[in-house]
Amino acid sequence: MTNEELFARTALHSWTLVLERIEKGFASLSDDDLQREVAPGRNRIYYLLGHLTAVHDRLLPLLGLGERLHPELDQPFLADPDRAHPDPVPAPELRQAWSAVNGRLAEGFAAFAPEDWLKPHNAISAEDFAREPHRNRLAVLLSRTAHADFHAGQMVLAMERK
Amino acid sequence: MTNEELFARTALHSWTLVLERIEKGFASLSDDDLQREVAPGRNRIYYLLGHLTAVHDRLLPLLGLGERLHPELDQPFLADPDRAHPDPVPAPELRQAWSAVNGRLAEGFAAFAPEDWLKPHNAISAEDFAREPHRNRLAVLLSRTAHADFHAGQMVLAMERK
Repeated sequence: MTNEELFARTALHSWTLVLERIEKGFASLSDDDLQREVAPGRNRIYYLLGHLTAVHDRLLPLLGLGERLHPELDQPFLADPDRAHPDPVPAPELRQAWSAVNGRLAEGFAAFAPEDWLKPHNAISAEDFAREPHRNRLAVLLSRTAHADFHAGQMVLAMERK
Repeated sequence: MTNEELFARTALHSWTLVLERIEKGFASLSDDDLQREVAPGRNRIYYLLGHLTAVHDRLLPLLGLGERLHPELDQPFLADPDRAHPDPVPAPELRQAWSAVNGRLAEGFAAFAPEDWLKPHNAISAEDFAREPHRNRLAVLLSRTAHADFHAGQMVLAMERK
């Protein structure tokens, strides 16, 4: 394995580990459990499931992996706060969307050559990228890995109350 | 810049971004504010500050960067839960320890050549590493980056109540 391959594989492994742990968390909760708040008056786990799904769905075009699967999640789970609407998507469908989006990402990532991770993502100008070449696809992956664990830290507060 | 340099620089940048955001959070809180709980009956921010400092201090020997600065933090902030003791370290000292540890890590990381990130960390056997070369120093950095953001997600619950 080349050093570049090792760098890429290690980063992807870190993403996968974080997602697997979160997936285990969601899987251990019933649809009713998803209604729990991470702290009194704060986001429900249901909202975090939708939020993470929307954020990950946006990675598809951002990283050149094709069209989004669930753009309809942006309004209720990114633009609006929790409980702005009656629950827009039944929990079982939201779980399916979460799995489908992460599955599509995994397929796309598996097909990346190491140097693909160093290409610009699709929201940076050629000028900016020339100046700041670390604003690449890898940076997006690492940022979303940390973002997912940011919310995992919140979810766990509700799960340990089980 | 070589591809290896870019991989290393991007990963280190992601660590730095997460730490800077957390540092901004700690800096915005008074010593009294650090006593807030992230949720009712859960860890105080004070404990998370000590916990993150201890976890990062352990990176020094783990990544071959020398002796620990604050091994005395392990018992109260890793082994024991919050409030097992009267507060073992005054908040200003704990803030200093946090800065010193992260400063020492930053110095060490700055001196790494890209391929240094792909070396084994100091808690894996040669046998295991031969089989699983992605269990390297980079994997540790990415894991601790996500870990820090895991707790940042909890801290923010207490900070937004300010």
